[in-house]
Amino acid sequence: MTFPDWTPDDFRRHGYEVVDWIADYLARVEDLPVISRVEPGDIRAMLPPRAPEEAEPFDAVLADLDRVILPGITHWQHPGWFAYFPTGASPPSILGDLVSSGLGVVGFLWATSPAATELESQVLDWLVDLLDLPQGWKTTGPGGGVIQMSASDATHLAFVVARHRRHETPVEQMVVYASAEAHSSVVKGARVAGVRHVRPLAVDEELAIVPAAFEAAVVADLEVGRTPLAVVSTVGTTGTTAVDPVRPIGEIARRHRLWHHVDAAYAGTAMICPEFRHHQDGLELVDSYVFNPHKWMLTNFDCSAFWVADRRPLIDAMSIMPPYLRNAASESGQVIDYRDWHVPLGRRFRALKLWFVLRAYGAEAIRAMVRSHVELARGLAARLEADPRFELVAPVPFSLVTFRHVAGDRATDDLAAALNASGDVYVTPSHLDSGSFIRVSIGQRTTEARHVERLWQLIDDLAPPARSAG
Amino acid sequence: MTFPDWTPDDFRRHGYEVVDWIADYLARVEDLPVISRVEPGDIRAMLPPRAPEEAEPFDAVLADLDRVILPGITHWQHPGWFAYFPTGASPPSILGDLVSSGLGVVGFLWATSPAATELESQVLDWLVDLLDLPQGWKTTGPGGGVIQMSASDATHLAFVVARHRRHETPVEQMVVYASAEAHSSVVKGARVAGVRHVRPLAVDEELAIVPAAFEAAVVADLEVGRTPLAVVSTVGTTGTTAVDPVRPIGEIARRHRLWHHVDAAYAGTAMICPEFRHHQDGLELVDSYVFNPHKWMLTNFDCSAFWVADRRPLIDAMSIMPPYLRNAASESGQVIDYRDWHVPLGRRFRALKLWFVLRAYGAEAIRAMVRSHVELARGLAARLEADPRFELVAPVPFSLVTFRHVAGDRATDDLAAALNASGDVYVTPSHLDSGSFIRVSIGQRTTEARHVERLWQLIDDLAPPARSAG
Repeated sequence: MTFPDWTPDDFRRHGYEVVDWIADYLARVEDLPVISRVEPGDIRAMLPPRAPEEAEPFDAVLADLDRVILPGITHWQHPGWFAYFPTGASPPSILGDLVSSGLGVVGFLWATSPAATELESQVLDWLVDLLDLPQGWKTTGPGGGVIQMSASDATHLAFVVARHRRHETPVEQMVVYASAEAHSSVVKGARVAGVRHVRPLAVDEELAIVPAAFEAAVVADLEVGRTPLAVVSTVGTTGTTAVDPVRPIGEIARRHRLWHHVDAAYAGTAMICPEFRHHQDGLELVDSYVFNPHKWMLTNFDCSAFWVADRRPLIDAMSIMPPYLRNAASESGQVIDYRDWHVPLGRRFRALKLWFVLRAYGAEAIRAMVRSHVELARGLAARLEADPRFELVAPVPFSLVTFRHVAGDRATDDLAAALNASGDVYVTPSHLDSGSFIRVSIGQRTTEARHVERLWQLIDDLAPPARSAG
Repeated sequence: MTFPDWTPDDFRRHGYEVVDWIADYLARVEDLPVISRVEPGDIRAMLPPRAPEEAEPFDAVLADLDRVILPGITHWQHPGWFAYFPTGASPPSILGDLVSSGLGVVGFLWATSPAATELESQVLDWLVDLLDLPQGWKTTGPGGGVIQMSASDATHLAFVVARHRRHETPVEQMVVYASAEAHSSVVKGARVAGVRHVRPLAVDEELAIVPAAFEAAVVADLEVGRTPLAVVSTVGTTGTTAVDPVRPIGEIARRHRLWHHVDAAYAGTAMICPEFRHHQDGLELVDSYVFNPHKWMLTNFDCSAFWVADRRPLIDAMSIMPPYLRNAASESGQVIDYRDWHVPLGRRFRALKLWFVLRAYGAEAIRAMVRSHVELARGLAARLEADPRFELVAPVPFSLVTFRHVAGDRATDDLAAALNASGDVYVTPSHLDSGSFIRVSIGQRTTEARHVERLWQLIDDLAPPARSAG
């Protein structure tokens, strides 16, 4: 060693300690308050102003996980996590990611670790079958799948590819269309891609795009000389899990040559169960599709699965070949070089954790998990609906329940704040034009009936009567 | 449990097994051939065509790491790794990343896990001192640091921020400038940002930008009505680790209002040693800066440290606030929400691994590592220079040695191929306008004098005499 370093046995010893720390964390997380109670600056105040010059004992680092870090953690892995969407961090996934860290390979070319590329292609092809996506999206067909870092990256990428395909047109003329309820990554991705016009499309009472409104917007833009570039159909919006009608949107997109991107970041996982697939009928009219195994499919962040129906425009937009990346395998045309499938060059061996998850659970267990979460959500929705104090804000096609207190915004906001102050649950306060509401997202791996029961008790206890001042 | 799942103790047991597997891998990686010898399709042929319906025993998954995955791994952690640049995967870093996976938090807002944001700010402020970057780049000043996924993402982001700042100008008129030797991420980042003109600037005999050539290019573009947008100074190019003159480029950039981005992806780590800092003199004339702890600073992929001198234009370009992300902490203005510092929304707790590395090694050990790699590189360069068969292609300011066989391209290419066929070492064959050359990048954590000695023996044995047919 040319500097003081750990031996493999040091790694083994400290590795056991960290595994123990995580196992203990997983066992006790339910007893911690879900939401961190620190104030801004509290964590930094516990950290020294400068990095250490000399090595510290590993014990000191581990002790600081408890002393410094844990008080500042809001526990996404708590079974009372009903906020945002869940983020998967199942035990097999954690270990798959650990193997990725241990191998420490960067698979930007097939040649820089063939297994990293080939396992990724295979696992994403597996998902095509598991979710009943179009067969042509397999890497063995004209399309193909690739792991992106996030759905935001994937949606941005879809716009860049669409824009590149139309590179004879000034970007200032281009227009992107999406539901007024689409995720903020649509507006952000368009902005990052330089597209200045994003049309928020009118939605129906279930908060889904009205296809006629989409076509009218396209026609209006064409009439003033703009170039309709791309449309995003969301299958499961962030606000309420509303489902845009993929088929009619796809038909309009084809007619006017728009790129059609589907954002199923959260709800894509549900498609492992046949009974949810009608929500995305029309995928043969789609150019790109993203869902996040790191949300509901038990896989830890980051792992966002992205498919294109035709990989040529993607590679055409993303490929740059400098001399230090030339190699015989790439030049043979027989391999996939995933660096040509996204913005960054470097890439982690992320397929390992997805492979671990799919093998350690098997598809049937994932289906059982999805169905149990959906059933819990429907049960909660039924209770809310039966109580005169509450009204549902939107249908419950998956496992998100949205409701408000009938006494109005203040009662709703106060209820959300009181729930979150309990320490047992975390819900997301949100609002629509129609007013404030509460999002209850059920999807954490360890959430069981008793946790939803506890949430219901809290709601029942903390909510004022229906006639309370609003 | 609502579906068959692992208990915390299952995680503990299998976690030990994975730690053992990695410890054993680290102990034996030196005995494996550096470069995978599989052919395209070999790995996929060992994988079943469909995902399993039922759970498989974890033993079967672990066994397949050896049977299926390892043959397809090119070992970036092998001490004979002299290809590309190194990628750090030190034992403390692997464990820091494991804790991140175990906690499974997504820190897109301060409020979604305050420790994730505050540790990141603190550790990046530590690096400002460790690398002697401008004090104003600390998060406590007008600037600030943030972990990006890769230098490609960071460079692309710099262009997007620069473009957004000039949003009154059509992107079609904008021009980006960089060395003809700059990394491919400059051309790719510009293309992704919609910038169509990238001027490859003339370089001197040491392959560094000629400042007068930069200014002449800017003036020529201004004269035809184009808008010079941004310039990239590279401190340590990928091809030869050439160093662009940051100060004169910065002065020209200021004069003409260009965004000045520094790409020190590889060489930034060296700045922990004062003797290398003269290579980036002039940082007070820089708008943004990126270096990759995941290259030479012992931190596993992905971890790219990015600073801006002024965070306002970055946040102005990246911030979008939908209702489901509103929260009191953000609205107080007292906290950093890192989602506004990059393209994606979701983000891993990446600061943990950097914190583990800085504490488990301490700054002095990292300096010792850098100095030992540089000394090994200079020793190899001296031997090559003293041998009439070889000539150096470029100076050796850090730990990359570039050389060619004097008999010409074919002798050089053949030597690279023979070295890589040995199984003991991996070098990168590359070329410049002046012809083929061999890149020897010394920077893998476990590379010692004996490994460079072995490389030299192979070079000495395999290279033909100086007068061989070229």
